[in-house]
Order: sequence, then C-alpha cells, then structure tokens
Amino acid sequence: MSDIWIYVGVIAGFISIGVALFLFYWVKKQDPGSAKAQEVASWIKAGARSYLKRLYTALGILAVIIGIIISIIFSLHLGEAGGGEFDLTNGLKMAGAFIFGALCSSIAGYMGMGVAVEANVRTATAAKESLNKAFRLSFYAGSVMGLAMVGLAVIGMSVIFLLTREAEAVLGFSFGASTLALLAKAGGGIYTKTADIAADLVGKVEVGIPEDDPRNPAVVADNVGDNVGDVAGMGADIFDSYVASAVAVMLLGSTMANNPNQQYTILPLVICTLGIVASLIGIQFVRVKENGRPGAALNRGTIITCIIFGAFMVALVLLGKMNLSILWSTLIGLVVGVIIGFTSDYYTSDQYKPVNETAKVSGSGAAITIITGFSYGLVSIVPSIIGIIIAMVLSFYLSEASGLGGVYGIGISAVGMLAISGMIVSADAYGPIVDNARGISEMADMGQEVIDRADILDSAGNTAKAITKGFSISAAALTVLALFAAYAEVIEKTGITISISLRDPLVVAGVLAGAMTPPLFSALTMLSVTHNAFDMIEEIRGQFRDNPGILAGTALPDYEKCVGLAAQGALTSLILPAFLAVGFPLIIGFILGPNALGGFLGGSIFTGVIFALLMSNAGGLWDNSKKFIESGQYGGVGSEAHKAGVVGDTVGDPFKDTAGPSLNTLITVMSLVSSLFAPVIAAFHLF
Amino acid sequence: MSDIWIYVGVIAGFISIGVALFLFYWVKKQDPGSAKAQEVASWIKAGARSYLKRLYTALGILAVIIGIIISIIFSLHLGEAGGGEFDLTNGLKMAGAFIFGALCSSIAGYMGMGVAVEANVRTATAAKESLNKAFRLSFYAGSVMGLAMVGLAVIGMSVIFLLTREAEAVLGFSFGASTLALLAKAGGGIYTKTADIAADLVGKVEVGIPEDDPRNPAVVADNVGDNVGDVAGMGADIFDSYVASAVAVMLLGSTMANNPNQQYTILPLVICTLGIVASLIGIQFVRVKENGRPGAALNRGTIITCIIFGAFMVALVLLGKMNLSILWSTLIGLVVGVIIGFTSDYYTSDQYKPVNETAKVSGSGAAITIITGFSYGLVSIVPSIIGIIIAMVLSFYLSEASGLGGVYGIGISAVGMLAISGMIVSADAYGPIVDNARGISEMADMGQEVIDRADILDSAGNTAKAITKGFSISAAALTVLALFAAYAEVIEKTGITISISLRDPLVVAGVLAGAMTPPLFSALTMLSVTHNAFDMIEEIRGQFRDNPGILAGTALPDYEKCVGLAAQGALTSLILPAFLAVGFPLIIGFILGPNALGGFLGGSIFTGVIFALLMSNAGGLWDNSKKFIESGQYGGVGSEAHKAGVVGDTVGDPFKDTAGPSLNTLITVMSLVSSLFAPVIAAFHLF
Repeated sequence: MSDIWIYVGVIAGFISIGVALFLFYWVKKQDPGSAKAQEVASWIKAGARSYLKRLYTALGILAVIIGIIISIIFSLHLGEAGGGEFDLTNGLKMAGAFIFGALCSSIAGYMGMGVAVEANVRTATAAKESLNKAFRLSFYAGSVMGLAMVGLAVIGMSVIFLLTREAEAVLGFSFGASTLALLAKAGGGIYTKTADIAADLVGKVEVGIPEDDPRNPAVVADNVGDNVGDVAGMGADIFDSYVASAVAVMLLGSTMANNPNQQYTILPLVICTLGIVASLIGIQFVRVKENGRPGAALNRGTIITCIIFGAFMVALVLLGKMNLSILWSTLIGLVVGVIIGFTSDYYTSDQYKPVNETAKVSGSGAAITIITGFSYGLVSIVPSIIGIIIAMVLSFYLSEASGLGGVYGIGISAVGMLAISGMIVSADAYGPIVDNARGISEMADMGQEVIDRADILDSAGNTAKAITKGFSISAAALTVLALFAAYAEVIEKTGITISISLRDPLVVAGVLAGAMTPPLFSALTMLSVTHNAFDMIEEIRGQFRDNPGILAGTALPDYEKCVGLAAQGALTSLILPAFLAVGFPLIIGFILGPNALGGFLGGSIFTGVIFALLMSNAGGLWDNSKKFIESGQYGGVGSEAHKAGVVGDTVGDPFKDTAGPSLNTLITVMSLVSSLFAPVIAAFHLF
Repeated sequence: MSDIWIYVGVIAGFISIGVALFLFYWVKKQDPGSAKAQEVASWIKAGARSYLKRLYTALGILAVIIGIIISIIFSLHLGEAGGGEFDLTNGLKMAGAFIFGALCSSIAGYMGMGVAVEANVRTATAAKESLNKAFRLSFYAGSVMGLAMVGLAVIGMSVIFLLTREAEAVLGFSFGASTLALLAKAGGGIYTKTADIAADLVGKVEVGIPEDDPRNPAVVADNVGDNVGDVAGMGADIFDSYVASAVAVMLLGSTMANNPNQQYTILPLVICTLGIVASLIGIQFVRVKENGRPGAALNRGTIITCIIFGAFMVALVLLGKMNLSILWSTLIGLVVGVIIGFTSDYYTSDQYKPVNETAKVSGSGAAITIITGFSYGLVSIVPSIIGIIIAMVLSFYLSEASGLGGVYGIGISAVGMLAISGMIVSADAYGPIVDNARGISEMADMGQEVIDRADILDSAGNTAKAITKGFSISAAALTVLALFAAYAEVIEKTGITISISLRDPLVVAGVLAGAMTPPLFSALTMLSVTHNAFDMIEEIRGQFRDNPGILAGTALPDYEKCVGLAAQGALTSLILPAFLAVGFPLIIGFILGPNALGGFLGGSIFTGVIFALLMSNAGGLWDNSKKFIESGQYGGVGSEAHKAGVVGDTVGDPFKDTAGPSLNTLITVMSLVSSLFAPVIAAFHLF
C-alpha cells in the first residue's frame, strides 16, 4: 500500500467537501419564504452568529495558549532520547498539528451551523407545499454537515501525515479536534438547555404564553440553542471520534515491527476513504415518493451505505491481498455498531415497552415517571455493553490469531464503525433542522398544517437520532479502548514497561479517580444549566416588568440580551470542565505515574460509557414518553400523566443534550492528552 | 499472639450479646402505653413477624440449596491437589460454615426487629413524658442491634476458626452471612418502598387522608416496612461488611510466609474484640441532660468510642511489640471513615449549600429539583472516593514498607474502620425506631406534642444516619478492595499467576461486565418497587370500593392482605437480583477465566461504590430539602416548592432505601463467591 492511497483519500475528501458545498448553495437557492418568516430566521441567524463568534474567540485564545505550551514542551524533547536539546521545529510541528485540528473541527461545526440556519426557514416554507419537499431539503442540509465533516477529517489527517510521516503528529491534530469538540459540545449543551429551561419556566409556567411565542425574550436564544447544541456541537463531536479512532490505529500501526511502506499506519485513512465514497452513494438512496415514509428512507440510506462499504472492504482486502482479519474486524465493528444503534431504539421508541410503561405509570405522578425512566435507562446500558464486549473480544482474537496484534484489530473495528459517519451524521443533523423549522413556523404564524408536517418530519428523525446515539457511544467506546492500547504502546516506546494491573494499588487509585471524572463532569455541566437558567429568568422577568408592551405584543423584546447572557454563562461554565478534561489526567500522571494514569483512563472509559448510555437513553425515553402521552394515550395533553411526562422530559433534557453527549468526547480528550504527553510523564513522575 | 486472644474475643462477644439482651428486657419493661397505642403496635408487630417468617422460610430453603451445592463441590476438592477424591468432611465443613453464617446474619436481623417493634410504641409513650426519656429508650433499643450484631459476628468467626483452623472456612461463613444480608436488605428495601408508595398514592393523593391514617389498608405495611427495611436490613448489612473485612484479612494473613502462631490470621479478630469493648464503653457516654441536644450526644458517643479504640490499638501494638504499620493502618481507616462520614453530612444536611440550593430551586418545579439534587449527588462521590484512595494508598505503602505486604495493610484499615461498628450501628438503628414511634403516635392519636418530639428525635438521628451511610459505603469499598486482593491470592495458591492487567482484553471485558452489574441490580430492584406498588394500589382501591365503612372509620381495613402482598412481591422480585449476585460472577469466571473474573470484581467495585454514594446521598439530600421546605422555607407546606420537594423525596426513597444500600452488599457477595469458588474456576474455565 503506497502513498497513492493517501492522495486518493485527499481527493475523496475534496469531492466530499465539494458535494457539501454544492448542496449548501442548493439549499440557499430554495425559497426563503415570507418576509415574516425571514425576519424570524434572521433573529436566529444573528443569535447563532453572535454565539459562535464569542465561542470561537474564547476557544481560539485557549487553543493558542495550549499550542504555545505544546510547542515549548515538544521543543524540549522531554522524556525522549536527545531530551533537553531545544528543537523548535519539533515543537512547532506538534503545535501546528494541534491548531490545525482545532481549526478543522471548528470549520466542521461552523459549516453545519451555517447551513442549518439557512435550511430551517426554507424547510418550514417547503413544508407549506409538501412533506416530501421539506424532507429532501432538510436531509440535504444535514448532509452538508456529514460530508463536510468527513472530508475535512480525512484531508486534515492526510496532510499532516504527508508532511511529517509521524503518527504522533496526527495525534496532535486529533487532540486539537477533540478539545475543541468537547468545549463546543459542552458549551452548546449548557447554552441550549439554559435558554430552553428559562424560556419555558417564565413563558409557559409564569405568564402562560405558548412555546416558541415571539413575545418571549428568550425564544430566540432557545432556537439558537437548538442549532449550537445539536448541530454545531454534534458535528464537532462525531468529527472527534472519527479522527481519534483513525489516529489510534495509526499509532498502533506505526509501532508494528512488520509494517512495509507504513501500510498499517495508512490503512485507517484508506478505510475512511472507502467509507466516504460509500456514504456519497448511500445518500442518493434517501428519497421518498409522495406520501412515502421519511423514517424508512433514512434507515434505507444507512443500510445501503453499510452494504456498499462492506463490499468495498471485501474488494480492498481480497484484491490488495491483505490480512483477512482486517476485513473481519471492520465488519464486526460495522455490524455491532448498527445492532447497538437499533437496540437503543428499543429503549427510546414508543413502539416498545420501556416508553409505554413509563407513559402508563405517569398517571401516578412525576416521581414514578422519573424512577421508572431512570431504571430503564440503567437497564439500557446492558445490550450496548455486551455489544462492545463482543466487538472488542472478537476483533482482538481474530487479529491476534492472524499475527497483526490484537489491539490493532480493536482499533480497526472502531474505524469500521465510524467509517460510515458521513451517512450517519447526515441522517442525524436533519433532526435539529426540522426541529428549528417547527419553531419558525410557529413564531411566524405559518399555520397548523405546516406545524403538523414539521412534527411528522421530527418524529421520523427520532429513530435515526436514537440509532446515531447508540452508534456514536459504542464507536467512541471502541475508539477509546484502542486509544488506551495506543497509550500503553507510546509509554513502552520510552523503555518503561507498564502492565496497568489492578493488583497495583496505584492503578486502582487511578481507576477510582478516572471513574469519578465522568459523573463529576456531568454534574458540573448540569449545575451550570440550572444556575445560568436562573440568571436568565431574572432577565426575562425584568424585560416583562420594564416594558409591558412586550406581552401586549406591541413591542419587541430584547432577544440579543438573552442570547448574550446564555452565551456568556455557557462560556464561563466551561472553565472547570475544561480543566477536568485536560489538566486532571496530567496531574494524575505526573503525581501517580504512567501506570496509574493508565488506570485513570480505564476508569474514565468504564463510567464514561455507562453514564453516556444512561443519560442519552433515559433522556430520549422521557422525551418520547411525553410525546406518546401527547398523542392521546393515558389521558393526553393536560392530564396528570402529561404533567408528569413534562417533568420527565425536562429532567431528561440536560441528561441527553448537555451531560450525556459530552462524555464520549471527554474520555477521548483525556485519552489523547495522556498519549500526547506520555513521553513527558514517563520521564517525570512522583511515584 | 496465641489462641487465648480468640477466647478473649468469644468472651467479649458473649458480654456484648449479654448487654444487648439486658437492654432488650429493659426496653420491654418500659411502659407500653395506652390500649390504643398497644393495638396499633400489635398490628405492626404481627405484620413484621409475618414478613420475617416468609422471608426467612424462603431464604432458609435457598441457604440449604446453596449449602448442598457447596458441600458437593467441596467434597470433590475440585481444582485442588488431590482433586476428584470424594471427601465429605471437607464438603460438610464448608457447607456448615456457610449455613452458620446465614444463621448468625438472620439472628442479628431478627433481634434488631424484635426490639424495634417493642421499642417503637414505648418510645412514643415515653415521648409523652419527656424528650430525653424517649431518646434514651430509643437509643438503647438501637444498641441491642449494634451489640448483638458485633457479638454474633466475633463469636461466629472465632468458633469456625477454632474448629477448622482455616481462613477459607471463615470465608464460607462470611459468604453465608453476606448472601442472607443482601437478600434481606434488597427484599426489605423493595417491601418498604412498595408499601410506602402505594399507601401515599392512594391515601394522600387519591382519597386525601393524611399519612399514617389507620383507615389506609396499607398503613400497617408501610410501618412494617420501616422495620424490615431499615432495621433488619441494615443490621444484616453492616454484619456482612464487618465479617467480610475480617475474613479478607484472615485470608491474606494465612498466605503470609512469616506468620508465627498464625498471628496475622488471628489479628482481625483481636481488633474486632477491642472495638467491641470500646463500643461498650462509648455507648455509656450517649446521654443528654434535660433539654440537651440528642444529636450532639450521638456524635459524642462516636468520637469517644474512636478515641478509646485508638488507645487500645496503641497499647496492643506497643505492648505486643507488633509491626507498627498495623497501628497506622487501623488509625488511617478509622480517621478516614469518620471524615468521610462527616463529609456525607455536608451533602445531606440542611445546614449546607446542596440541600439549601435544592430547596431554593424547587420553586421552579419538580424537574429542577431532580436535576439539582441528582447533580449534587454526583458531586458528593468525589470526597468519598478521594478518602478511599488516600486510605488505600497510605495503608498499602506503610504496610509494604514495613514488610507485611501492602494489601494486608488495606485490609487492616478496613477492619479498623469497621471495628467500632457496635457504636455506629447503635446510633443508626435508633433512627427507624423513632420514625416508627412517630407513625404510631399519629395512628393512635397521641397528640401533636408527641409527634413534635418524635420529629425532633428523628432529625437528631439524621446526622447520625448520614455519617453511618458514608462510613459504611467507604468501609465496604475498602473491604472489597481487600477481598479483591484476597481473591488474587487464592487463585495464585492454585499455581496460576494472574495479573488482572487492563491491557488484557478479557480483563477489560470482565471489568465492563462487572461495571454494568450494580446499575442493573439497582434498576431491577427499583422497577420491582413500582411494579409491586401498582399491584398494591389495586388492592387498596378494591378494599375502599368493596367496604365503604373503611373510609367512614366504622370498619377496619384488611391490613394483613397488604402486608402479605408486599411480602410476596418483594420475595418474587428477589430471584433475578439473587442470580445476578451469586450466579453471574461464576458464569464470567467459568467462561472468561480467573483473570477476567478479577476484572469483573474490579469493575463491580468501581461502579458499585459510585452508584451507592450517588443514590444514598441524592436520596438523603432530597429528603432533607423537602423537610427544609416543610420547616417554612421557600413557601413552606403547600407551596409549589413543597410539591416539587415531595417529588424529589419520592424519587429519592427507592434511591436511598432500596437500590443504594444493597450495592455494598452486592459487591461483597460477588467478591466472596468468587474467592470461595476460585480454586474450582482456576481448574475449569473456557478461555
């Protein structure tokens, strides 16, 4: 396998971005609707821009600071042979890779946002005409994000590798991408729920105006939140797992003794390239005839993409006369990923017992709703964990038996899962666009028919969303397990042997410290939401009090004030979580040593995956059981069951949109920072 | 150190039981109050007896079945030198130890119940006269449980050891005690919350009668629940950690090369003996002058017991010219245990920010109460985990440096923590007795003054309760860490070397499987509660419908029917959790092998401790924030904040009383069953 493959990857990446740009302009060309709708959309667009400007300014400064630290440390070659000599080239190389990664991650998020704020109003307008037109528009808008993301990722990794020929430099790229992703995701999650809760509590509860009412000063912040949390955050999130899984395999490949033409280092880039092509084809199959079912179309796209990708892999391995275990590992990852995705659907769809049962018991009050939903959330961990175990053990042993080394197989199965991210993200990003279209149609008085159609599109996206969530958490789990193995390899390259044995109390201390980090991170972000929401509640009450014209509908509220408050609050709340993700693993490593840091990473993976599954699934379950009641079951809207369902949904919101989805990225960032600084930690540690 | 010490321990045990019996008869001699009060108490007593009869019949059968399996397997000497030859003596020895352990655990629980159902009505009657009299009576009743428990434990372990001279036989005793404890605790937890939720939902919500109203058919079941869940369950629970910590150290001691007169095997029995004497003295200091503060008296008792015990240990180590590290490990365990206990108080007391903040935000609805309380519950994990890490690492290194072997030190620190259990349990068992006294005073119309006094006593017990919970969870954590080390030693005795390295994918598979077990166990018990509560709701509604005289107050409801329903439901619900605790580790071991089983135990410890802390502390926090609102803060009773507080409290009930407290015991049982069957697993496993 030669460098030609890398160039092919770069070309596929550019094609992917080209298609994304084409779809972007296609979306922009569609009818932007009435003046009223455009005005509403412009508020949201302005709010989103204002938030992103603040976010990326803050994160840009942070990236530069971390970049400077990286350049100094890596200029010193600390902990490596030749350490102590100042070699600025090496430092700048790593810092450059880090900042390039951060930049690519930001661009992916920014592009997703850019198209989402254009697509929302156009989807609402298209829904006036027909359901199918609205579906096509919103799905293509979602594809912009999916395709841009995978294209940027493959180009970024390839360029860095071509320039440096070092997997470690790509690790720097990945660390940059993940750090940005974590903060974008967590910040967006705090932002969106702050606005949501504050808008609901004052609007719906205190003054009794409907959701998405334009008189509510926080309504724009709420709609901006859907974009920054769900679109920009999610884009950056999958970007990060996608890159990290490839990097883990590149690192593992680069340490292989028998690695002709660096073929095992390059392989993940090739697999990603094939996945991009498969996604580009699969996306074409997401079409519905008039009155067809959008949900089925999304699933069809996913399945077809999987099959095409599988066929490509068969061809690659057989024609390239490669080790057969690579094929098995890829397919295991792919199949297990899809199965886990569909299993998550069981726990969050109103077709099955968990949601039904939770809706049924809601008649007995909110407490029972919470206990039941939380318990099913705990049970939902089980199938995913079993799936992860099977994928890990099978790919390990097949790869080990073939002579490639077992951990390499685990990494390949993660890459196999994530290779079709282009399609997966397209299907997922469609959800928040439709959600936002619904908000605009309400705010711009576009009529009940449009709202109803938006609701149908929304529920079609729910299955896709559930599948993506289960999929992305398990993919992240396999990715960090591969990164974990890569960490150990990087440490051993320095000459230190580590076993990360649970019989070593320092390792157990590390595991315990690592295991408490994801719950602590979740708590910090959720407490920020309630804290910031209370500040915003004061602001909304103040606006209503100072300007009675707002509620009368004769004066516009100051939307920007609420947008700014939510943004400021979210950014301030990120300081502690950011330290926890980047600083805490280093502290553990420098004090307790590389073995304990290995334990720390292990501990963070174990509880990180469990809490991510619990929070995502319980949140989705409560959301859908509320919607199930609203569809007329167990008393319908206004009943006691419905009130309890609303409480469950509100509890689930920060679970599934703030805390849960950041945990993947948290454990990835912690694994990456540990591997990056592993040589330094191996050289300097207290115990 | 000679056998004399063991006999001293047996004597101290009998003294402890003697004092317990004396206090028991003293309690029974007190004024049982009015005929009405006695009638109410007799319903509760009959209900409790009926439940215990069913429980112990079912558990007795289970114990005999497990005993038979044990006797067969150990008769075969599977996996040991000389395996295959049938040696019934060995089988009967282990089965006998198991059944004796189960028996002692049952007796401890039964005695606690016996005194509690006598003391409740007498406490209520004494509260008519004075607060102090009621305090003394309820505390002495609690001491019956504390003293009987430690006495039985030390006698049981000593007798088994004297008869067999094998630490492994004491392991069988401990396994019997823990299995019974787990099922008594989980069954009691399901029972109590089933009755509580059903009684509240129909009584308070549907027909609008107050709590503890005698017209409610479930009111007796609810009061019985306080006894079976809090008293009997808790007694069996601490009994189990107490024995398991001693056994872990005995096992570790017995594998030492340099162990003259088996002194390191016997040492934990000696430490327990000193703890019993210290507790007997410390209990004398729990007195209040007229209008003194009961809460301060309880804390004084704990602190004085600690000081006396510390002095004893100094004397033992210095006069016995023992290894100094034993003293350090004991003191580290003791100090860290007490500090963790007081830290838990921070998260659950209305004096501090978490409870205050949760009460404050409750004005904005139940969802915010849940999110805030849950988040603080997650944060509350941190100080305890740090405490456990410090105790583990310090005691390991001090002990390792002294030449005793580091893991022995970890075990000794667990024994040091638990040595003062006699005092700790006395202070804790007082809580549910007072709680029950409050119920009786309401049901028997004993007047507002009595209820108010019972409330004061109850809140005095809250701090003690919070301390005990933090204390018992951290003690259990250190205990299972020591058991974990003992498991590895037992495996290595068979000639297999295990490293339990996280670089081995089978170990990671084991850890993931172990890590999902405590959340799954919690979910199963909590889902049983809601499921059984709905059956009971039907029963209560049926009674009200079929006999209108009940609500009119002219006819007595059928209390026994509800008691039986709750009991039947709780026992049926135990089947799956029991299998998970005893069968699942064995399945993992026989399929994935001893290394993976080591990982499994590790994983179960990590999430077991985290979920136990989360659920206990969040539950306590919601309970007290509701009470804080009821004391007149943020709108007081009937306000929106209060309604939200009630929801929080109801969610917290199964957290803190059903799922949370069983998790300690779950991980202990899983560690014990693994160690017990370790030789068999070492000989027969698939991978």
